[in-house]
Amino acid sequence: MSWLPTLITANVEEGFDLAIKLSRMGVKKTQPDDEVRAKLRPIYENDADSLTNVSHVIATNFQTVAAANNYWR
Amino acid sequence: MSWLPTLITANVEEGFDLAIKLSRMGVKKTQPDDEVRAKLRPIYENDADSLTNVSHVIATNFQTVAAANNYWR
Amino acid sequence: MSWLPTLITANVEEGFDLAIKLSRMGVKKTQPDDEVRAKLRPIYENDADSLTNVSHVIATNFQTVAAANNYWR
Amino acid sequence: MSWLPTLITANVEEGFDLAIKLSRMGVKKTQPDDEVRAKLRPIYENDADSLTNVSHVIATNFQTVAAANNYWR
Amino acid sequence: MSWLPTLITANVEEGFDLAIKLSRMGVKKTQPDDEVRAKLRPIYENDADSLTNVSHVIATNFQTVAAANNYWR
Amino acid sequence: MSWLPTLITANVEEGFDLAIKLSRMGVKKTQPDDEVRAKLRPIYENDADSLTNVSHVIATNFQTVAAANNYWR
Repeated sequence: MSWLPTLITANVEEGFDLAIKLSRMGVKKTQPDDEVRAKLRPIYENDADSLTNVSHVIATNFQTVAAANNYWR
Repeated sequence: MSWLPTLITANVEEGFDLAIKLSRMGVKKTQPDDEVRAKLRPIYENDADSLTNVSHVIATNFQTVAAANNYWR
Repeated sequence: MSWLPTLITANVEEGFDLAIKLSRMGVKKTQPDDEVRAKLRPIYENDADSLTNVSHVIATNFQTVAAANNYWR
Repeated sequence: MSWLPTLITANVEEGFDLAIKLSRMGVKKTQPDDEVRAKLRPIYENDADSLTNVSHVIATNFQTVAAANNYWR
Repeated sequence: MSWLPTLITANVEEGFDLAIKLSRMGVKKTQPDDEVRAKLRPIYENDADSLTNVSHVIATNFQTVAAANNYWR
Repeated sequence: MSWLPTLITANVEEGFDLAIKLSRMGVKKTQPDDEVRAKLRPIYENDADSLTNVSHVIATNFQTVAAANNYWR
């Protein structure tokens, strides 16, 4: 089973969750080691600018997911 | 009730407010601890570059919301 | 009266001005204190990279405004 | 005469030049003082990362100009 | 054989993998020396902000690949 | 002869190469001095984050080139 079978979601909130997943997978595919990522987590989770940057990546992926779903109109 | 039931808003200003909400939720979903976020707030709220970056995330999300609403034409 | 009644502008230059306004409102909605923002202004206004970043936010918002106006074709 | 009468250009290269102009105007509208900008110029002109960031803003504005011109197809 | 014969992929997951490939090729075309890139890898792979930035580039390329594939609808 | 006569390319790979060219021209138009750029090259070519940022600019320009070519479908 693919971790990303489709960009279509039942509703807007699930679409936002998918954008978060895509953002995390962009990291995971670059740094596949779970332990390293776990060690890095408290760093960006406690840094205001890091969190803003994470939110920017989510926003970029949400553009894709929203367009794929015709904005759930 | 979903925190994000729709991308459709009554007018442009509400669309901009929704873009702000999406930007904040991108942070909140990454750092769910209210206390930590409250501690970080005065840091980015008093840093010119941090505020510019926050505005960039809002602009990215506003692109999505505006497209969803056909630009309120 | 809304500060953002419409994305439609009479011409391209007014559209660029609206993009600037949206960029500033993204900051103002995050840091509503006029005094704090006034204190931060000389910092980013005298920093080359800060100004480039501000211009990036304007460019992102201008994409939205230009699309809304069908590029004033 | 407006500094930005139209987004339509005669060809692709002029469109790229317009994207550069938009990027600079984003800076100029934020820092209107010619002397200050002249003082900042050697800073970002001699910094690799600053130049990359400037190129990113130009790329963002070029997306807008190219779409406005239907990609000069 | 081209390293990039098409943007069309069989499914969404392969599209995301192509976005990763495009992001890496953007680096490789700028720094073609395999040894240098190998030396830089542990740096960004162990830095939270670097990984977020890599994920941002992937998200940008994924927008292109997803649009090319009509979002695999 | 223009350095940028068209955004149309024969295939996807040439489109990616054009995106690289656009990214470099964004730098060159800002810093036209060949010697200065040559001096800056080893800096960003040996910095992981700089290379990621360059790849981001390429990705942004590739969005434009890909759209211009209807994604070479």
